[in-house]
Amino acid sequence: MKKQIAIIGLGLIGGSMAMALRGFEDYELVGVDRDPDTLAFAAAHGVADRLTDDAPAVLSQADVVYLCLHPRGIVRFLEANRDRFKPGALVTDVCGIKTAIVEGAAVLPEAVDFIGGHPMAGRETSGIFHADGALFRGAHYIITPGPRSCPSHVALLERIARHIGCRDVVNTTTQKHDAIIAYTSQVMHIMAVAVCDDPDLFDCKGFEGGSFRDCTRVAALDVPLWTELFSMNAPALCTVIRTLEDNLRAYREVIESGDTQALAAKLAWSADRKRHMNLE
Amino acid sequence: MKKQIAIIGLGLIGGSMAMALRGFEDYELVGVDRDPDTLAFAAAHGVADRLTDDAPAVLSQADVVYLCLHPRGIVRFLEANRDRFKPGALVTDVCGIKTAIVEGAAVLPEAVDFIGGHPMAGRETSGIFHADGALFRGAHYIITPGPRSCPSHVALLERIARHIGCRDVVNTTTQKHDAIIAYTSQVMHIMAVAVCDDPDLFDCKGFEGGSFRDCTRVAALDVPLWTELFSMNAPALCTVIRTLEDNLRAYREVIESGDTQALAAKLAWSADRKRHMNLE
Repeated sequence: MKKQIAIIGLGLIGGSMAMALRGFEDYELVGVDRDPDTLAFAAAHGVADRLTDDAPAVLSQADVVYLCLHPRGIVRFLEANRDRFKPGALVTDVCGIKTAIVEGAAVLPEAVDFIGGHPMAGRETSGIFHADGALFRGAHYIITPGPRSCPSHVALLERIARHIGCRDVVNTTTQKHDAIIAYTSQVMHIMAVAVCDDPDLFDCKGFEGGSFRDCTRVAALDVPLWTELFSMNAPALCTVIRTLEDNLRAYREVIESGDTQALAAKLAWSADRKRHMNLE
Repeated sequence: MKKQIAIIGLGLIGGSMAMALRGFEDYELVGVDRDPDTLAFAAAHGVADRLTDDAPAVLSQADVVYLCLHPRGIVRFLEANRDRFKPGALVTDVCGIKTAIVEGAAVLPEAVDFIGGHPMAGRETSGIFHADGALFRGAHYIITPGPRSCPSHVALLERIARHIGCRDVVNTTTQKHDAIIAYTSQVMHIMAVAVCDDPDLFDCKGFEGGSFRDCTRVAALDVPLWTELFSMNAPALCTVIRTLEDNLRAYREVIESGDTQALAAKLAWSADRKRHMNLE
């Protein structure tokens, strides 16, 4: 019997993951979703080798389980199905926070190996109808193995990352992941929505350039998903927002002061940091 | 004798404008710069029909003058050369603020028609070595004609905009330009540098996704240029920065409160604004 990878939740990310995993080694791909329209679309587009709405039946056979639900959905799923996973299985996820997820996975029996994962890719759309097998190309695939994680499972995730086109695998802790992601991803989304709250938003048609389009691109976000991501990482995220408020105020104050030499020096300092980051 | 377009300043924008203007109607293109390396590069790459470092000699013959200098350079150039322009000529510029420039152009004699312009394109590099004839493709070309501007000159700028590949010509006032550009362009650059001021910047390699790359792209900016653009539009820019600080703080406070329903409602409001803007 072939080894099996079960993908639980065929939304944008789960559907894209199933498509990207096609042809991965000798695994059979099993797609699981509760929504009949999603399953019908997945069947029509050959998204997986087998499709079902019966997660419990799949879990006992699956060698690898990809949990592609929203964060609280993952925690609830682990809790509800804790005794159904196959001993020796690798269970992983794809969501944008890791500490709360790995804490939730503590309910699993010792024989089940949970390794948190975060392939850093997304879209401003949701659902399998927007899924794309090329979604992960060039993305970082972050994983957070624990001290008892099986090295062969880490190696398996690295082979998967390569297969789906990721640029590299970044191995880190859940705490570091959540602190840095608050900065590199979450606050970018907060900025995008905050920019769209400006009263001038609807006057700006015809005046927008590349930087405005880039910044606001992610503002049309999936509200239930991002509400969970933000609130489940609130302390780290609020620290980053506060720093950004301070840094913006510092720029405003030097501009208001009329001291153009001080402004030039401040801009040079920031621009050098950006150039330096690019070189590292 | 052919009609002439003189391009004063062959940096990133002036050089790109010269390249983009190749073949425009029956005009001869004359490139002017004081820097020998710039002129040598322009000559080697056929950037204009004729090249010189002698601006005064060119001005008396030019039917159209494109001032592609930094903002204060434009104001100084107009002041120094006020009596050298050809009567009936169209003089225009390409810089990112308009009120200070059009005020500076008040030194010109009545027979010279100054129309401020801002093709909304740029790069995080400077100099002719990075010039690109395709730079303006798909960009808005904003113009700010005054009550005495000649309609045939407005029509000429519209034909130029089409020739260089702009998506449209947006006709507005200098005040409205500067207020909206503070929002759609200047504050995007302030955000980019402010984000790079975060102490975590150098820890974020391996954790950056598309939104972070997009937001910080413009942070490695041309410091002398942006010092002038920001300081010459300080009141409008500081208003926008303050609004953004307020909007970020409002998001931080609702996240800190732990009220996920309020957070979801706030996100839905902002995301709807973004979607609504796209549809308009």
